[in-house]
Amino acid sequence: MDQTLYGGIEAGGTKFVCAVGTGEGEILRETRFPTRDPEETLRKAISFFNEQLGENPLQAIGIGSFGPLDLNPSSPTYGYITTTPKTNWSNTDLVGEVEKTLGLPVSIDTDVNAAALGEHRWGAAKGLETFIYLTIGTGIGGGGMVKGQLLHGLIHPEMGHIPLPHDVGQDSFEGACSYHGDCFEGLASGSAIAKRWGQSPESLPPDHPAWSLEAKYIGYALAVYVYVLSPERIILGGGVMRQKELFPLIRAELKQVLQGYVRSDAILVDNDDYIVPPKLGDQAGVLGAIAMAKVGLEGGTGISQHARAH
Amino acid sequence: MDQTLYGGIEAGGTKFVCAVGTGEGEILRETRFPTRDPEETLRKAISFFNEQLGENPLQAIGIGSFGPLDLNPSSPTYGYITTTPKTNWSNTDLVGEVEKTLGLPVSIDTDVNAAALGEHRWGAAKGLETFIYLTIGTGIGGGGMVKGQLLHGLIHPEMGHIPLPHDVGQDSFEGACSYHGDCFEGLASGSAIAKRWGQSPESLPPDHPAWSLEAKYIGYALAVYVYVLSPERIILGGGVMRQKELFPLIRAELKQVLQGYVRSDAILVDNDDYIVPPKLGDQAGVLGAIAMAKVGLEGGTGISQHARAH
Repeated sequence: MDQTLYGGIEAGGTKFVCAVGTGEGEILRETRFPTRDPEETLRKAISFFNEQLGENPLQAIGIGSFGPLDLNPSSPTYGYITTTPKTNWSNTDLVGEVEKTLGLPVSIDTDVNAAALGEHRWGAAKGLETFIYLTIGTGIGGGGMVKGQLLHGLIHPEMGHIPLPHDVGQDSFEGACSYHGDCFEGLASGSAIAKRWGQSPESLPPDHPAWSLEAKYIGYALAVYVYVLSPERIILGGGVMRQKELFPLIRAELKQVLQGYVRSDAILVDNDDYIVPPKLGDQAGVLGAIAMAKVGLEGGTGISQHARAH
Repeated sequence: MDQTLYGGIEAGGTKFVCAVGTGEGEILRETRFPTRDPEETLRKAISFFNEQLGENPLQAIGIGSFGPLDLNPSSPTYGYITTTPKTNWSNTDLVGEVEKTLGLPVSIDTDVNAAALGEHRWGAAKGLETFIYLTIGTGIGGGGMVKGQLLHGLIHPEMGHIPLPHDVGQDSFEGACSYHGDCFEGLASGSAIAKRWGQSPESLPPDHPAWSLEAKYIGYALAVYVYVLSPERIILGGGVMRQKELFPLIRAELKQVLQGYVRSDAILVDNDDYIVPPKLGDQAGVLGAIAMAKVGLEGGTGISQHARAH
C-alpha cells in the first residue's frame, strides 16, 4: 500500500475541491468552497494544505483546473489560466502561486484530464486505453486518453466549444457562450439551460422539454467525439448529468445521429455500458488531481510538471 | 540505408496505388489503376507484387484502405472492409486475400492513418507528436497521431462524418452522404461539390462561389478537430485540395470560427504553417503503407498486424 500523501486541487469555475489522499486513491481530508476571485480562493486552498503539513508532509500537489491553461513547460506563462470568460481569472499563475507558497512540486492539467485520470485509475475507465471524460455543468469540457496518454497537443482539448448543428427554426435560443454563441457549451451547458428556460437545471422536472433538447445536443456532440477519436467509452459527469433520465435519452440520440455507420456492438446493440456516469462521482476531479501529483513525481502519462527550482 | 523492400497498397475508393519501396521511403516501382469491383482490383494489385517477387523478395505488405475497416486483431473479420457505401466492397477480406495469395505478412490501417504515418516519417508531420491528416476527395476521411501513436480506439476515426452547422436558409443543398445527408462529407466532399453545382470540382474556376462555401465547411470541421484533439498541425490532402486557393480561405475561416478562444500563435498569428498540404503529395498514402509494412514487422506505433499462420 502506498501511504505517501499527496494534495489534489480541483479548480472548478464554480467550486474548488481540495483534498489530501494516498497514492491508492484514499481521501483522508477534503474541503469544498465556492470559487471567488483568485486571491481569496487560492489563499483558502493553500491554508487547507498548510494545516496538513505539520502532521504528515505531502510529497506533491496536483491541480486539475478549468481553462484554457498554458501547459507548455517551456512557456513563460506555464501553469497559468490564460483567457477565460471567468471574471478576474485571466492570466492567473496557478502553478507559481501554489509552488511558491507550499514549496512542493506541482503538476497541472485540465480539470477534465484530471477527472479522466482519476476514472482511469480507480473508476469507469479502468483498463481502457482510449476514452473520453466529459463534464456538463456550468460549462462543458472534455478530456481523456488516447492509447493510455492524456490528451494534449498544441494546447489541450476544449471539447465543449465545438460547433454543432443548430436548427434555429426548431430552437431559436441564440446560445450562451460569450465567445461562440451557439457552440455546444453555448447550447447545452447548465448556464445555457438556465438562460434558455429562465430557471436552473435542478429545478426543471424530468418530463420538461428541456431534457429532450439537451439530449439532442449532447447526442450530436458525442457523435462528433466518436467520429474523431473512436473512444472505447464516454463518461459523462458534471451537474447537469445529475439528471439521470438524460442517460437513456442521450444513448438513443447518439444511435440516431450515427445512423449505423459506426459498426460496433458497443454502440449499436447495447450502449448502456458505452455512455456512463463517473464511478468516482463528484470526487473524480480531486482524486484525479491526487493521481496527477503522484504521476507528476514519477513521470509518465503525459502530465506536465514544472522543473522550477524551489 | 535500409534497402530491404516492402510493398505498399493505397486502397482508395477511386483508385488503387501499389508500390514497392525501401524502408527509407524510396519508391522503386509504382502502379495506379481505378478501383473497380474487389475481385478485379485485388487481382491487379497482387499481380503487380507477384512480378517483383522473383527479383528481390518483399518482406511485408502494408495496406492503407478506405473503410470502415475491422482493425481488431481478435475479430473474425479482422482486416475486412465492413460497411461501405461503395458498391460490392462491403465485407471484403482485404488482409486475408493479400496474405493468402502473396504469402507475406500484411499490416493494415485506414488510408488516412497510412498517409499520416507517411507524412510523419518523411513529410509535413516530421517531428510532431499530435497532428491530423485529412483527405478531402471523393469522400472525406481523417487520421493522425496523438503523442506519436496512430489514432485508433473502439474502431478508428471516421472524421469525415461529423455533424456540422448547416444553415439551410443560406445553403439549401440537402447533402450527399448516403448515411447522414448533410454531415461534413455530405456537404463538402468532391462528390458533394459535384452534386451541388452540377459539375466536377476540377471544372469549377477559382472565383466560383463553391470555394468560399467549401472553405466555410472545412473551417467548421477544422475547428472541431482543434477543439477535440488540439493538433499541432493539420495536413489537408485529397483531390479537392488541389484547388490551392482553398488554403488561405480555410485558414481565415478557422480563425473566424474559433473567435480567439484557442490562444496559440500557431493559429492566431500566422497559420500558414498550421494548415498545410501534404509534403509527399499524392504519394503520402502509398509511402505510408510502405512505412506501415515495415513498422508492422517491427511492432510499434499502434499498427495492427495479423498473427495468422502462413
